[in-house]
Amino acid sequence: MNIAFIGLGNMGGKMAQNLLKAGLTVYGFDLSEVTIQHFTEAGGIVCDSPQAAAQHADVVISMLPAAKHVKEVYLGENGVLSVLKAGSLCIDSSTIDPQTIKDIAAVGAEKGIKICDAPVSGGTIGAQAGTLTFMVGSDDAVFEQAKTVLQHMGKNIVHCGDVGAGQIAKICNNLILGISMAAVAEGMALGAKLGIDPQALAGVVNSSSGRCWSSEVCNPWPDISANAPAGRGYTDGFATQLMLKDLGLAIEAAGQVKQPILLGGLVQQMYQQLCLQGNAHLDFSSIIQQYLPPQAE
Amino acid sequence: MNIAFIGLGNMGGKMAQNLLKAGLTVYGFDLSEVTIQHFTEAGGIVCDSPQAAAQHADVVISMLPAAKHVKEVYLGENGVLSVLKAGSLCIDSSTIDPQTIKDIAAVGAEKGIKICDAPVSGGTIGAQAGTLTFMVGSDDAVFEQAKTVLQHMGKNIVHCGDVGAGQIAKICNNLILGISMAAVAEGMALGAKLGIDPQALAGVVNSSSGRCWSSEVCNPWPDISANAPAGRGYTDGFATQLMLKDLGLAIEAAGQVKQPILLGGLVQQMYQQLCLQGNAHLDFSSIIQQYLPPQAE
Amino acid sequence: MNIAFIGLGNMGGKMAQNLLKAGLTVYGFDLSEVTIQHFTEAGGIVCDSPQAAAQHADVVISMLPAAKHVKEVYLGENGVLSVLKAGSLCIDSSTIDPQTIKDIAAVGAEKGIKICDAPVSGGTIGAQAGTLTFMVGSDDAVFEQAKTVLQHMGKNIVHCGDVGAGQIAKICNNLILGISMAAVAEGMALGAKLGIDPQALAGVVNSSSGRCWSSEVCNPWPDISANAPAGRGYTDGFATQLMLKDLGLAIEAAGQVKQPILLGGLVQQMYQQLCLQGNAHLDFSSIIQQYLPPQAE
Amino acid sequence: MNIAFIGLGNMGGKMAQNLLKAGLTVYGFDLSEVTIQHFTEAGGIVCDSPQAAAQHADVVISMLPAAKHVKEVYLGENGVLSVLKAGSLCIDSSTIDPQTIKDIAAVGAEKGIKICDAPVSGGTIGAQAGTLTFMVGSDDAVFEQAKTVLQHMGKNIVHCGDVGAGQIAKICNNLILGISMAAVAEGMALGAKLGIDPQALAGVVNSSSGRCWSSEVCNPWPDISANAPAGRGYTDGFATQLMLKDLGLAIEAAGQVKQPILLGGLVQQMYQQLCLQGNAHLDFSSIIQQYLPPQAE
Repeated sequence: MNIAFIGLGNMGGKMAQNLLKAGLTVYGFDLSEVTIQHFTEAGGIVCDSPQAAAQHADVVISMLPAAKHVKEVYLGENGVLSVLKAGSLCIDSSTIDPQTIKDIAAVGAEKGIKICDAPVSGGTIGAQAGTLTFMVGSDDAVFEQAKTVLQHMGKNIVHCGDVGAGQIAKICNNLILGISMAAVAEGMALGAKLGIDPQALAGVVNSSSGRCWSSEVCNPWPDISANAPAGRGYTDGFATQLMLKDLGLAIEAAGQVKQPILLGGLVQQMYQQLCLQGNAHLDFSSIIQQYLPPQAE
Repeated sequence: MNIAFIGLGNMGGKMAQNLLKAGLTVYGFDLSEVTIQHFTEAGGIVCDSPQAAAQHADVVISMLPAAKHVKEVYLGENGVLSVLKAGSLCIDSSTIDPQTIKDIAAVGAEKGIKICDAPVSGGTIGAQAGTLTFMVGSDDAVFEQAKTVLQHMGKNIVHCGDVGAGQIAKICNNLILGISMAAVAEGMALGAKLGIDPQALAGVVNSSSGRCWSSEVCNPWPDISANAPAGRGYTDGFATQLMLKDLGLAIEAAGQVKQPILLGGLVQQMYQQLCLQGNAHLDFSSIIQQYLPPQAE
Repeated sequence: MNIAFIGLGNMGGKMAQNLLKAGLTVYGFDLSEVTIQHFTEAGGIVCDSPQAAAQHADVVISMLPAAKHVKEVYLGENGVLSVLKAGSLCIDSSTIDPQTIKDIAAVGAEKGIKICDAPVSGGTIGAQAGTLTFMVGSDDAVFEQAKTVLQHMGKNIVHCGDVGAGQIAKICNNLILGISMAAVAEGMALGAKLGIDPQALAGVVNSSSGRCWSSEVCNPWPDISANAPAGRGYTDGFATQLMLKDLGLAIEAAGQVKQPILLGGLVQQMYQQLCLQGNAHLDFSSIIQQYLPPQAE
Repeated sequence: MNIAFIGLGNMGGKMAQNLLKAGLTVYGFDLSEVTIQHFTEAGGIVCDSPQAAAQHADVVISMLPAAKHVKEVYLGENGVLSVLKAGSLCIDSSTIDPQTIKDIAAVGAEKGIKICDAPVSGGTIGAQAGTLTFMVGSDDAVFEQAKTVLQHMGKNIVHCGDVGAGQIAKICNNLILGISMAAVAEGMALGAKLGIDPQALAGVVNSSSGRCWSSEVCNPWPDISANAPAGRGYTDGFATQLMLKDLGLAIEAAGQVKQPILLGGLVQQMYQQLCLQGNAHLDFSSIIQQYLPPQAE
């Protein structure tokens, strides 16, 4: 099985390496010289356009920053859909709005090309370790086929529904995540100010109805959750600017279907405010700093 | 050991019955004829004032609606602190602001009376079954003594810190809870509108970073969580007006220590808006109705 | 002077009629048969494409629903910039994000075509009466030239700064407007519930520091402001869905420059919620209904 | 006519001096030595309790920090209502919740004592200059009587309705004010970041539908409004902590009547966050700093 991998950045590069380790042939494309070099060293075959990579491929995987790149790669003047054979499979693992991938899948369907969305969670650490979760949107047959490839890059391949459902699941999950992280930040900072020991408070919350991933696994108060970004200056986590991007997708998608998300609309701006204060690259749990007095230098 | 139990309402009445079942002697006081009758039938001894009940008691337990009642019962002109012997123990299980119980404990300390806060979670079902969680604020010795009584009414007795820490833990937990429930409501309603199957969405969220008590145990979308209020018209749950009260305590306590809680300030008003629309007595997960189009009658 | 007018809808059609009344020759284009008929009856010359209209014109005016239409009309494969002579003037009166018009102006500059943004306020009533306010973004010379045309359609032609500044002024104004209307709704509904006469309350607010356009001219409580939509069932005003669109532009523009707007992010969702309840076509002051108990039918 | 003036602080002291200047006899009480000295120097007669002051008085005026002080002064064990003659008049100019003054008025009515609320706007500058606005809650006859006294301290005496209506008017006005100031801060900061000249933006807003007291008279962007706090480092204005207090009263009053105020609930916390960052004593228009990048020192 030949793979074309479009987008070899922080996430895509590590994912492609796991395919190479599994013995697959991978034709790759990226605009960055550095990422191409890593890819070549790992045994990948570099191509000078998405189309060139796709010409050799049975399966195309894309991992791109935003919907406009995905549209360009699949539907653009020299897009991969114009060279793929009927029966080929395309898996887009970018995080984008659900409508875009539905539109691309409709074009693919006319050509007999199968297309699914499969955004991921697990970050660069999961990408490297091959332990990503994939949220897949497609029919059953395409899901089974995609799974045979995705299993080399992740350990949790979830079928969410038809095309677009993977994106929907991801943005809804991250909407809840972005809000609940801010909620935990408010609760922990309030408790500490009121005088309870943060460790004791977290203990109560985590055995009670306030418990959530943000309180248990990634508590924003330092040294509550083992190995959480809060314990290392909020580095090496899920960057605030990426949370901001995902909340932006939630708001965009909500707007398309005329659905209100009040807390979502507010917290996106709160993360934007956090970026303004210099935390764009820090883990989004650093939002707790909005609830603490300014640090003396 | 003789107990005085002040406040025999929905919660207190059931808690007192568990003490009676355990063979303790309980002197009780309440303003309501109906609750007194239930208490008498269960074997309790009715008194005509908190003071009268306290005169017979080694331990006073109170379960009252608000801080003003607690203040009146303990510090009022005929309050129980004026009749209790040095060495007595008072346990207040009401949900009130932390400062009030600290103030009462300070008065108690001058008289050699031990006072702790022990608010509960678990609702009327837990009160009846004797499976409440108690969040206790006191020093170690008082905690051990209180535990011997509380174990007849709950199965989870958590030491949160010094006097007031029980209240702090409860209001911080419920602050996080109130926000995360609204977050799950937004996420579930958005997903459904975008076309994903709510069951599939909940499956992804609950195995991912959006998971929380509100998504797993009490999902606001009907028939996701087994036995959740959403499956029975939002009845028999944690009433919206009680969530409103607890968020009010969080905001009051936050104001006392000059601590901001942005999402808390907003969601309190969202639950108030929900009450305005007739949901005061429904489970607070009914907040999802704010995100759905109005029902045709 | 020959004018090409692209977009002859509710606003554009009325604006074009004022140009015709002023004796100018107007070549027009629109996709709708109905609007074209009105335009013809008023003396306009119908063309079958934007390009066809532009070929006859010294000045192009556009009044379109969204940025994608504006881009298509100016920069599309058969866009007007490809047929206009150097020295021509384009005035876009659509309400769109500032960046789009800056991009178009940059393309125009290469061809020697002058381009300015001139979004309006005043609604369909102002469009008909020729009393619109135009917020113009351009250099001084272009502003003076644009003014000679705009004066036939409006009475208030404001120079806001360079290209894009008209859009910036409009979205910032409407951001403040959308929030302050909701603020007045909260204040009026609260006062009424607390028992003050709404007329008396409005009197105090309007002579004090709470006064604003929304309290004085368009008070959401019925029969406070003369001729306001609140007095006629919130009809014939600035539709909630248009406020929603403008707040969406503010959020999009804010995101582009990484600027937080917390209240903006929230109120957009509040207006979206209002639309969900059936008020999309009612004046945005109907947001006060979110603060009133549901009406019995 | 003899006046008793209770509370001679920043506001009350200056107000009492205007009564003395008008030739009235004023008996005063305050806990602070410093304020008493100023009062004596101005010709006032110091008393050692509110009651002592009231014993000489036909009219009692109070200007106190919070409801608990007002309750104590009027209804406390040695409160003024227990010594005043029937037919006396009490004017409370403190800013407190409406319910408290209604409760006090009810007690007064039983004794034939007339009581009205008359909170002020205009700040310490208006207090000194005798140009305050009084918002009076009372029946018509009491209003006319109160006016004869209040006219010595203010130039704008507004009758808002029955007892409590003065407080209602004030808190509703300040609710709208607190929100619209934050709205203007968001709009001005967004416009500046997008590149429009703040002066030009303010010009558009102030001649359009975004105009409000906060944009015209007290614009948070420096040097837009003449003499506004923004032009002098946000000093000598309406302190953020006072806005915080007034928003707290709005939220408390709203809770009492079960009325939601979503934006109110949020902005109170935003002003609390501003206090956390050291702006408690600066003018509340300094909320614009929340929308600007942190200053390098």
